[in-house]
Order: sequence, then C-alpha cells, then structure tokens
Amino acid sequence: MPLANDLASYLADSRKRSLDELFEFLRIPSVSARSEHNADTVRTAEWFAASLRSVGLTATIHSTMGHPIVVGEWRGAPGAQTVLVYGHYDVQPAEPLDLWDSPPFEPTVRDGKLFARGSVDDKGQLFLHVKALQAHLATRKKLPVNVIVLAEGEEEVGSEHLAEFIQANQTLLACDAVVISDSSMFAPGLPSILSSLRGLAYFQIDVVGPSVDLHSGSYGGAVMNPAMALARILATMHDADGHIAITGFYDDVRDWGVAAREAIGKLPFDDNDFRAETGSPSLFGEKGYSTLERVWMRPTCEVNGLLSGYTGEGAKTVLPSKAMAKVSCRLVPDQRPDEIERLMRAHVERVAPPGVTVTVRPLHGGHPWRADLDGPLFDAARRALATAFGRDPVIVGEGGSIPVVDDFQRILKAPVLLMGFGLPGENAHAPNEWMAVENFHRGAEAVAALWDEVARER
Amino acid sequence: MPLANDLASYLADSRKRSLDELFEFLRIPSVSARSEHNADTVRTAEWFAASLRSVGLTATIHSTMGHPIVVGEWRGAPGAQTVLVYGHYDVQPAEPLDLWDSPPFEPTVRDGKLFARGSVDDKGQLFLHVKALQAHLATRKKLPVNVIVLAEGEEEVGSEHLAEFIQANQTLLACDAVVISDSSMFAPGLPSILSSLRGLAYFQIDVVGPSVDLHSGSYGGAVMNPAMALARILATMHDADGHIAITGFYDDVRDWGVAAREAIGKLPFDDNDFRAETGSPSLFGEKGYSTLERVWMRPTCEVNGLLSGYTGEGAKTVLPSKAMAKVSCRLVPDQRPDEIERLMRAHVERVAPPGVTVTVRPLHGGHPWRADLDGPLFDAARRALATAFGRDPVIVGEGGSIPVVDDFQRILKAPVLLMGFGLPGENAHAPNEWMAVENFHRGAEAVAALWDEVARER
Repeated sequence: MPLANDLASYLADSRKRSLDELFEFLRIPSVSARSEHNADTVRTAEWFAASLRSVGLTATIHSTMGHPIVVGEWRGAPGAQTVLVYGHYDVQPAEPLDLWDSPPFEPTVRDGKLFARGSVDDKGQLFLHVKALQAHLATRKKLPVNVIVLAEGEEEVGSEHLAEFIQANQTLLACDAVVISDSSMFAPGLPSILSSLRGLAYFQIDVVGPSVDLHSGSYGGAVMNPAMALARILATMHDADGHIAITGFYDDVRDWGVAAREAIGKLPFDDNDFRAETGSPSLFGEKGYSTLERVWMRPTCEVNGLLSGYTGEGAKTVLPSKAMAKVSCRLVPDQRPDEIERLMRAHVERVAPPGVTVTVRPLHGGHPWRADLDGPLFDAARRALATAFGRDPVIVGEGGSIPVVDDFQRILKAPVLLMGFGLPGENAHAPNEWMAVENFHRGAEAVAALWDEVARER
Repeated sequence: MPLANDLASYLADSRKRSLDELFEFLRIPSVSARSEHNADTVRTAEWFAASLRSVGLTATIHSTMGHPIVVGEWRGAPGAQTVLVYGHYDVQPAEPLDLWDSPPFEPTVRDGKLFARGSVDDKGQLFLHVKALQAHLATRKKLPVNVIVLAEGEEEVGSEHLAEFIQANQTLLACDAVVISDSSMFAPGLPSILSSLRGLAYFQIDVVGPSVDLHSGSYGGAVMNPAMALARILATMHDADGHIAITGFYDDVRDWGVAAREAIGKLPFDDNDFRAETGSPSLFGEKGYSTLERVWMRPTCEVNGLLSGYTGEGAKTVLPSKAMAKVSCRLVPDQRPDEIERLMRAHVERVAPPGVTVTVRPLHGGHPWRADLDGPLFDAARRALATAFGRDPVIVGEGGSIPVVDDFQRILKAPVLLMGFGLPGENAHAPNEWMAVENFHRGAEAVAALWDEVARER
C-alpha cells in the first residue's frame, strides 16, 4: 500500500528544507566524549528541542549529571496508543581529522551520500522522525498516536544517566511501544527490522607469579611463568571446533528454531565478501553454524587484549611478574552476565596452573535481547517499511550490544522496534561517516506510515 | 697451602691504595648504553690502559665501531703458558637514581660493602686482576706465566664488536687459558667455579588475523581471534609436568651424569629461601628435577612478553587484528640455537589454528657452554681459591648466558675459567650495586695464587 497522499506530498515537497535543517543539526559538534564540547552539546539539545516545538510538540530539556536529555511530547490522541521514539543527538569524536575528505561538521553531499559526523549515527536517523511527525501535524493537525520523543546526549559515552532517568520518569515515559532508528539496513534498498542483540560479559583476568620481573636465565625453569599460565588458561576456553568449553556456558541459550535459521539462510549474504571485509585469511567459527548464525545467535568468548612483560623492539630476557587478558563473552538470550561471570570464575579456578595467583574481575555487562516478532507493533512496522521501500523488510540480527534496548523493555515494559536506515559501510565512528540521502527521506516516509499502521492495529 | 709470603705481604700492605685506585676507576661513569657518556667510556679505557702500564704491562687501546677495547700484555716468560684475562670496563645505566642510597658514581663503603655502579659488575672484579699482576711484578719483577688482559667497553650492550675483534686478532690473543671474573660466589665465604652457562634462542611469534581491529560484537564468532590463537599455540609448548612438548626439543641435551647432580644436591640451598626471593606463591618446574637442576642443567621455554588489542583501563570490545609473543628458550649443551629455531618453527606450524597467519622470527641466539673440569687449569683454580678463602671451591652452574665465553673457547680454542667474586644480592644492574670489600682483596689473592698454580701445572 502506498503512503497516504497527503503525507507523501508533504514529505516530497519539503525534501530540500528537511535536508537544510538536518545540515544545521549536523553543524553543531556535539561530541559527548570531549568536555570542551559541553557548550555544543547543550546548544544541540536546545536546537533539537526548538525543532520539536516548531513541528508542534512540547519539549523540555532535563539536566543530568552529564549531558542533557530532551523530551518532546504530543498527547492529543486520548485512548490511542503512545509510542516513544528514542535517539541520540551526541556524536563520536571526529578524529583523525586528516582522513576526512570534507570537514566532519560541514555536511556535504557527494554521490547521494550525506557526509558528516553524526549523519547516520544518529542525528540523521533521529531527525527523520521529526520530519515524519511534522508531515502528520502539518497536513492533518494531529497524529494517530500519542508520541514521546526522548533524545539523549550520552549514547556515545555509554548512556551513563539514561537508565536512571527512565527509572525516575516512568510516568512521563509510560508507553505502548518504543521505536529506535539507530541501526542499518541489511543491504541497499532492503528495509530491515533488527530482532536481536547480543549481550556482554567483559572480564579482566590477571595472573601474578613472581613479585617483580625476574631474569629469565637465573630463574627460568624454576617458577611458573605468568604469561605462559595465562596462555594455558585462555587455551581451555574453546575446543578445536570453536565450541566454548566453559562448563554450563550454553545451558541458558534459547533455541531460535528452524524458521528463524531458515530466514537467516535466505538473506543475501556471501561468505567471501564478509571474509574480504574482515581481511582475515579465512573465516572460522563454531562448527554447525553459518557465519550470520555465529554472529547473531551464538555466544562468543573473545580475547580483547593481552599484556605481559617486554613488548618493545628486539629481545629482553625477562620472566614477567604478571600477565593480563581482557576477555569478553557476547551473550544470547537467555544468558545473563552475572551467571556467565560465575561460570567464568569457576572455569578459571579449575584450569589455573600452580605457582601463580589468578583473579577474574568483571568490567562490564549487558543483557542480550530478542524481539517478540509476533506483536502488532512489528506487523505495523513491516507494512510501513514495505510502503516506503516497495518491498517487504527482512528480519536481521546484530552481534553487538545496545544496552538501552533492554533498559526500555525492562523498565517501561513495552516492546522495542529497531528500525534503522543506515547502510553497510557507512563509517559510523570512523572518518567520512555518511548517510544515504535517499534513505533519510525514505526513512521519514516509513515512520510517517508507521503511525498510521500502529493506529490501525488497535 | 697459604699464599706465598711476598705476594701476601704486598697485597696486605697495599689494600688501602688498591681501594683508592678502584674508587678512581668507579668514579668515571662509563655507561656504554648512553651516547652522552661516550667521552667517559674513552676516558675509562685510557685510565685502565694507564693502570696496566703502571704495573708493568704494555697496553694498547683498539678502536672499534663502538667503544674501545684495551689489550694489555706481559710476555716475559717464554716457554711458559699464556693466560688471557677478560673483563669489561663499561657499566649499566644507574637509573633510577632516586633509589640509590649514595651516588652511583661516588664509591662509598658501608658495612664492608663498596657501593657504586660497576663495583662488582665488572670494574671491581677486573681491577683485582691488575692488583694480582702488580703483586707479582712489584715483588718478583716477573710473572710465572705470560698474561694478556682484554677489557672491553660493550659488555652491557651485547659485546657487539668483541667476537669480531677476537676473530681478527687471533695471533695477538693466542693463549692456553682464558680467565674471567664477572660472576658470583654461591654464598659468602664459599669460593665458586662456574662450570656451565645456558644458551639462548629468542623468538618473536606474530599472529595476524583481520586486517584491522574489528568490533567484537559485529564480527565476534565468525573469525579466528589472533590473541586466542596465540594463547592456543603457547599452551602447546609444555605438558602439565613442565616438560617442553616441542618434538625433538630434548634430542641434543647432554646427560650431566650422577656425580654432577649429586654435587648440586650437596650445595647449601633452600627452596623456601629461593621461593621467597622470587616472590612467587610456589615454585614450579620440570618434574623429576630439583630447583638448581631446573635452572642450571635443563632447558626452558618462556614467554617474555605478550601484546594484543586493548590493554588500557576498563573495557573495549575490540577483536584484535594481531597478537605478539616474545618467546625464548634457554639452552643446555649440546642444544644449538639454529636447530631449536627449526624445531620451534615446525612446532608452531603444526599447532597454529586456522584463520590466522603465524610467523616465527628469531631475534637473538647464543650457544650453551659447559666447562671440562678435568683440565689442569681447573685444578690450579681449585687450589688458588682454597689458598685465598681457606676452603675448597664449589662447582656451580648459571642459568643465564654469557655468549662471549663460547666465543673465546671456539675461536681461541682455549678452556675458559669463570672464577667470580660477587655475592648473592649484590644488585648488579640495579640501584645500590655493591661488592664486598673483603672479596675484592681475597679475589686479588686468589688470582695472584692462580698464576703460581697454573705455572706449577706445566
């Protein structure tokens, strides 16, 4: 079904203005990680609040211990559903600047791509929601649903104050659904709904042997080498087939079922392209699963960092006093970071060699998430995406983690729809970040259609 | 048998002057590793050459591409044996300076210990040879043997130009025996002859997977993690009993025989003291061998350094592009660094997991060495040490490597006697380096006795 004529015409006619406004949004360098940009993040929050007000929402700026949170509201549809749109107005640092082909905070369109820091992550994807709201409010003076827009300024630095804010403002933020556009489509022209995220359990393993670095000649052979001990510990974490060998590790892993795996198998995906993208000599993963299955629906145990002894040029004959590994597990439903921590500790204790002291310290954790795709919200989203892109969306997974998704679902008890308009290779977090201009406009159309579809589901 | 009266009287009477002269030697900061001290190393070579001349030798300073080599000669005993004394006049850097209780280049005696950089390593031990020569030449106007003194200025930076110098000057340096005092006694009052040194085969192992660091969420599970691959490789190098599991590794290891092991077992040695010295929670080593046997007569395979991925504070979810280990094997007779390199390469190739590229690069090598203790040189040394210290010497091993020992033996085809007068805990290479004043004087007596004993063996 095509987009309603009034909305379609409005969005088509305002394309240039929408882009001009997005340029303004992108020009403010709202780098949340750098305190010298604190005035810029405040200015960006104010710009965004003003933008919400200009299309007909009320907007409030809430101070936090970090960067402010903007909440916009339109509650003119009593009895209808309430949808919360979440996004973030902060951006990653732009460095290294010399790798940008045009200045990161001077938006530039080349070959249909809008280059700017924050273009796709997430200002462009947040702002297309404002444009969709505007299309409804300008043409019909109302929305078919109640809408809350929540934009934070700390997503790129860990959303430190967001969960606390949601917790403290449950009445304000009460809703029937959460919609987030901060992800990518599986391929150009292929609208995508993100149905799963992996969780995380991140540890530091410290192995200590001698109290100081020893001479490897005078002492070598008589004490356990902490770096060798660490290697022996790490080597026990997988078997030769890539299965994780930590006792109990898979106990809570939910079976995705045949249908989900078949759907993954039908996606346009090429192992050779993926391998080339990584630069690895060949792919390797858990036996019995395809590449996408390994990344989306299977847990991992990875070394993120190693440090011990002498690491400079040439030879130094030191027997290190200590060795350190950063080790993290990506988790899938229904694994829990605290349970994985317990299993990891028990495993390391069991396999640690004699002559060293080994400690496991949790550094970070996050729950995995999987959408219940059978709800009305997802049916509405499927239709809305088909309307804007002319083809049915695919259901995709994501190997990474977005902890805030679980926070929304857990605290607000509402389903979360992840409907993103980025594209593979868009350089989020890297130089020359871009968003396809066409996807910005199509995204606004999809979201405009979504409100009608959500209302229809009721 | 006591030291000959004339030599004993001369050395006793000149103790104060000997120490004063040693102070002069120690005051010149001949730090070979620091180019800003190049003038000091030249000055030290000149001081030492002058000192040799003052006691009756001729002395020549030979330039090298690095620091100069001093050669002193006394050849007034035609038909008698020729002995080459080797030592080094360069010292380790003194940093960190704030950990010294007195300035490193201002010699200070406290509690019978002479504190100064180079006191025991090796200026004090080199200079006591000059004093022994002086005792003979001052009292008898001659020596019972011909003597060559070779002092280099690059020992602390790898003796880079020494082997080449020996090779190029074989006629000048031709001798029947080499004597080196640059090691320690096993315990206070217990004179020691060093009978073995371990060799070295030092490698860097590089494991490369993805061409850049990847996001551990988006890619984790689908490619081999290079740090995990490295851990798996390293973990194959030993079995649980501490035996090295590289095929063929022990093939060339010479059996030391029961007598040598029994002698080691009789040395005054306590595992608890040794463990406390290392600070390790417990000792660990190859099953079937004592601690001293593990350090002196068994080869090792140690990790000297590890580096991969993120090693800073906190959590960063990176899947590293590469991982590096420094791995070195201490070798025992008759292992050879080149053969060990071949075995190491073959082993790593065999155990390397799929999905990564692994390279093994040799960084440094040195041959192990073991003295033939049955020769007349060692009988002479035993008697000389008994004369000076009032008790028979013990035969000890050394887990470290002194590559120059093998160079002398190989090029000059002369047996090498390692007769040192340091003591455990003397802080060589560390702040507050010291040499026992009494050992400096006793050492001179032992060496003075040695010339008579060597002549007697003929």
